[in-house]
Amino acid sequence: MSHRVNEQLLFNLVDLAGTFAFAISGATAARRCNLDLFGILAIAYITACGGGIARDLCIGAVPPAGLSDWRYLLTAVIAALLTIVAYPWVERLTYPVRLFDAMGLGLFAVYGAHKALVFGYNAEVAILLGMITAVGGGMARDVLLARVSIVLQQEIYALAALAGAALAVLGEYLHWPAVWATWLPILFCFGLRFASL
Amino acid sequence: MSHRVNEQLLFNLVDLAGTFAFAISGATAARRCNLDLFGILAIAYITACGGGIARDLCIGAVPPAGLSDWRYLLTAVIAALLTIVAYPWVERLTYPVRLFDAMGLGLFAVYGAHKALVFGYNAEVAILLGMITAVGGGMARDVLLARVSIVLQQEIYALAALAGAALAVLGEYLHWPAVWATWLPILFCFGLRFASL
Amino acid sequence: MSHRVNEQLLFNLVDLAGTFAFAISGATAARRCNLDLFGILAIAYITACGGGIARDLCIGAVPPAGLSDWRYLLTAVIAALLTIVAYPWVERLTYPVRLFDAMGLGLFAVYGAHKALVFGYNAEVAILLGMITAVGGGMARDVLLARVSIVLQQEIYALAALAGAALAVLGEYLHWPAVWATWLPILFCFGLRFASL
Repeated sequence: MSHRVNEQLLFNLVDLAGTFAFAISGATAARRCNLDLFGILAIAYITACGGGIARDLCIGAVPPAGLSDWRYLLTAVIAALLTIVAYPWVERLTYPVRLFDAMGLGLFAVYGAHKALVFGYNAEVAILLGMITAVGGGMARDVLLARVSIVLQQEIYALAALAGAALAVLGEYLHWPAVWATWLPILFCFGLRFASL
Repeated sequence: MSHRVNEQLLFNLVDLAGTFAFAISGATAARRCNLDLFGILAIAYITACGGGIARDLCIGAVPPAGLSDWRYLLTAVIAALLTIVAYPWVERLTYPVRLFDAMGLGLFAVYGAHKALVFGYNAEVAILLGMITAVGGGMARDVLLARVSIVLQQEIYALAALAGAALAVLGEYLHWPAVWATWLPILFCFGLRFASL
Repeated sequence: MSHRVNEQLLFNLVDLAGTFAFAISGATAARRCNLDLFGILAIAYITACGGGIARDLCIGAVPPAGLSDWRYLLTAVIAALLTIVAYPWVERLTYPVRLFDAMGLGLFAVYGAHKALVFGYNAEVAILLGMITAVGGGMARDVLLARVSIVLQQEIYALAALAGAALAVLGEYLHWPAVWATWLPILFCFGLRFASL
């Protein structure tokens, strides 16, 4: 039981860390398009939670966790406010923004695949939904900012998420210990994405 | 029983009035982008029903009312046809279009929050879904017209919807009479939005 | 029983043929926007399966067939790869691309309406969802390519899908033999669309 609680805690941590990382990426993109305070908060929230909401609708988990669990909204708002406050520094740093984005990609690919498996779906659904969780928020961000999404333009973006999700599903099928089955695919996806920059 | 029926009737009225108001706003925007008849009807319908469809998917109310209840489609089509016929007048009047848009915002924020509460969800979900009902259609309209949404660019737009939805949830929690709990938040949201123009 | 199996097979064939046709249309559009390999595969898949996923979310069929049935993904990937290999020929031919697009429109309008009826929904829902199945993927493609959708700009596009879906629903209500109830509306929609080019 305590083992299961620990695993649950680990995945919650992964999910909230991904939310934080993507909210920074979203807030920076919105700030660069000269949106005002609400626009930045909205884009940060949608970038952070859009992929998870799409995943939850596809597996029938309603209402989606991004709406019903206040921790997501709070995490996204804090990350967006930090980005706004620190913007003079953030602006000069494309590197850290991409770092956060690559982190979010790995964290969400693994969490999304895990959640689909927990809901009892097969490996194909889990891998596709892991990828959708990871890239969905960024696609929604770019659609709302009326531009062709970087998800479609950068080859090693969605493919890195796909690889991470596939490795996570493999790990759960082979009953790797939770810590390995979680962090190995996260690092693999993050490494793939980051190496391609 | 009769009291409950009256309340139901009141909320149906609010929902259809919002549909009518947003369909006019959508049809005007589509006409300005030189879309033809079907394009105008489609954008009017999506502006009017897109937010409600997103809300219904998030609370698991399938098929969404915007699809299964013919009154929404009929209301949107009538509003769009009226807009097309009256376009020579409508074009000169930015004021009434924004008036209708602000009315739709208030009506949908309150109805969306109410429907989420009826389905048994908590205050946070109801407030967020009230806002999504109110701004979702306009966001879909702007995405389809390939432009950055005014929802993201105008500060007192989604915030007015958020405030209206929050007041509606408060009213239902404090058991205000239905007429007060409905019209007070609608007027509050409408007033906030209209004052900011 | 065998009759039912044959009918099931017929509709599966219609659905996969539509997937193939739309994936070619999507891959061609993505290639013209200079997307790379993954971008082309993604747009082909979304064009082919986006409408069906929207339909499945609206009727509560989760996970959507486009995600859970590997044949859709495989069909879309094969069609996209063929398009890439044959691109020097495809580029000169706007005619065959529109031919495939019009075929996909008819096939999906009929299959979408049929699936909604199988799930027990009424004629209005079935007709609207038939149209959404047919035009949803193309709308998602154009939104992701950051342009106003041809669905909104070409009058006899969504209307052809609407007519095909309505005829399919009529055929099922009047208990036409499955072959007639399937191919007649498909040809009607295809003919309407193709005649308008």
